[in-house]
Amino acid sequence: MSSVSSPVSFSQLAPEYIRAISPYVPGKPISELAREMGLNEADILKLASNENPLGMSPKAQSAVTAAVAELARYPDGNGFALKQALSRRLGVGQESFVLGNGSNDVLELIARAFLTPGKSGVYSQYAFAVYPLAIQSIGARCIEVPARNFGHDLAAMADAVGADTRVVFLANPNNPTGTFHSGEAIESFLKLVPQDVIVVLDEAYNEYMSPEQRYDAVPWLQRYPNLVLSRTFSKIYGLAGLRIGYAAAHPDIADMMNRVRAPFNANSLALVAAEAALDDEEFLQRSYETNRAGMAQIIKGLDALGLQHIPSAGNFIAFKVGDGAGVNVRLLKQGVIVRPIAGYGMPEWLRVTISTEAENARFLDALAAALKA
Amino acid sequence: MSSVSSPVSFSQLAPEYIRAISPYVPGKPISELAREMGLNEADILKLASNENPLGMSPKAQSAVTAAVAELARYPDGNGFALKQALSRRLGVGQESFVLGNGSNDVLELIARAFLTPGKSGVYSQYAFAVYPLAIQSIGARCIEVPARNFGHDLAAMADAVGADTRVVFLANPNNPTGTFHSGEAIESFLKLVPQDVIVVLDEAYNEYMSPEQRYDAVPWLQRYPNLVLSRTFSKIYGLAGLRIGYAAAHPDIADMMNRVRAPFNANSLALVAAEAALDDEEFLQRSYETNRAGMAQIIKGLDALGLQHIPSAGNFIAFKVGDGAGVNVRLLKQGVIVRPIAGYGMPEWLRVTISTEAENARFLDALAAALKA
Repeated sequence: MSSVSSPVSFSQLAPEYIRAISPYVPGKPISELAREMGLNEADILKLASNENPLGMSPKAQSAVTAAVAELARYPDGNGFALKQALSRRLGVGQESFVLGNGSNDVLELIARAFLTPGKSGVYSQYAFAVYPLAIQSIGARCIEVPARNFGHDLAAMADAVGADTRVVFLANPNNPTGTFHSGEAIESFLKLVPQDVIVVLDEAYNEYMSPEQRYDAVPWLQRYPNLVLSRTFSKIYGLAGLRIGYAAAHPDIADMMNRVRAPFNANSLALVAAEAALDDEEFLQRSYETNRAGMAQIIKGLDALGLQHIPSAGNFIAFKVGDGAGVNVRLLKQGVIVRPIAGYGMPEWLRVTISTEAENARFLDALAAALKA
Repeated sequence: MSSVSSPVSFSQLAPEYIRAISPYVPGKPISELAREMGLNEADILKLASNENPLGMSPKAQSAVTAAVAELARYPDGNGFALKQALSRRLGVGQESFVLGNGSNDVLELIARAFLTPGKSGVYSQYAFAVYPLAIQSIGARCIEVPARNFGHDLAAMADAVGADTRVVFLANPNNPTGTFHSGEAIESFLKLVPQDVIVVLDEAYNEYMSPEQRYDAVPWLQRYPNLVLSRTFSKIYGLAGLRIGYAAAHPDIADMMNRVRAPFNANSLALVAAEAALDDEEFLQRSYETNRAGMAQIIKGLDALGLQHIPSAGNFIAFKVGDGAGVNVRLLKQGVIVRPIAGYGMPEWLRVTISTEAENARFLDALAAALKA
């Protein structure tokens, strides 16, 4: 096909803002590195995408296995059972939920429902790459607010909200830097933002915050009806491969998002797995403890190597190596996949996902070797 | 939440074209009817969503079961293995493929990449409901062309293409009417449409066409670089619950679509299941034969009941009962779910999915009872 010449330039048919998109660069899949380097997949350690090293909740796995026989049926497009479970757990009416094909989908639905060319969206420097992509794919204007100490500058973000701003994206904790704000700081921000501007609080890594850091944003939905909570089952719940996330919001906001939602955006196995995972407290606790211990281990290792790192409230940590691209290649050659974050404007840094003790140790050994080379 | 009063009307914050959307109404899920009518799920017959009555390919089921252990990992965002399999099978380069979370996703990606407010999209009356939804959700103008004998009026559709038209959606066979055009007719249409207008040929039901009806659209990609083929694994492949479809198109068109595609829109199990299903010729043949026999059985039954029906090239058939809503309720009370198509402007008609001999017989009995009541 690439040899077909066309009298028409199809890229020129797309609007300028679509042509300007640089697609999201995901963590390198294990299969891809195996192909590129001639390595065995089993020998490769992937610490690039903030996945749960313990896998998925055993309850979710049982639910998936039981549901495999019914896959010729369409999913329940309304996600009744999962919304019921979420409603029970969060104490929020079912009409407040929007299910997504991962929380990425939820973020896009907000942009598609509320942004148009001529409107703008606000987000922080070093925040999740999908925020500007979601805004740009509509042809709306991106307002990126400079970070402070790699974290969100909330006062500056509130100031950046303009007359044409419809949506603000906040990540807490933030990815890829791991920075976070206290519940008090987030609530103060909510008070500053006009009530007709939607504030998306992305809590993808919420469950990894320490007990002292944790806050409950759900009651804020009552006080700040312009708040949209975005959450995912891809991180601590270990369901990244199934793609399921959700938003909780004022029913009118949820209604608009559901109008642009594809009717069967959440697949059948994702729905049953998320429902089962939601209440698997044992797995959540074990995942939390594994991350806490692993974070201490990785920090100790980075300190021993004399590497600067950013305090992280998530299941990953960013550390400074100078030549990020070079060190990354030397890690890849050892079968270790971490995440280069040059695309976030941090070419001297790498981000690693916290894993089990043995995998963390392998990473630290590989990093030491990569730095010596 | 519904009791929270907000000083702001959030629906008013969304653009007018979003507020005007009437969301897609899917076939009623079995679980929903069970709840509503107090029936056992096992006693309910769902013939509403053109699903494969034989389930999924056994090869796909094995692939899914084997992949369940790895679900904490993100999918391969590039879908390398599935694109490789598609490329081998269709003889088209991998750069021509765009994978979708169902073909619904593919249809939306086309609209999002090429339409803007001020542009228009063309489709036929009685065509798949997602075409106008995809156009409308961008704020582009919908041009609906009156059907002829419930099928696409291809000459009128070509005439309807205006200076602002960027996309034309064709379904062949069409859903919900089952009408189809010959390969010659479709190719003649392609010759009529300007080369800078993208023609989406939706072949969701392609594999159900009889050997005499079948044509191969893939070589047309070389001759008509403005052609986009849309296909799904939700119908004859039996993977509706997993959500996987694809587009094949000129690499420049695929490139624009991939820029608005969510990085992990196709989940891990869908990717492996589709790859396995693609070459399961035995299952495809058996599904085709089951549909062919079932279609004859249903037509005979509808004729015996004196009901008008539209000749169908798909795995479903539309038949006229007069009071579609009333007959539908009387079918539901018997635990039989078919598809009302009043939303398509056909309130006197119902659409039933062709199933196995026993299920078809149960449907025909229930229909006879519903008509007598």
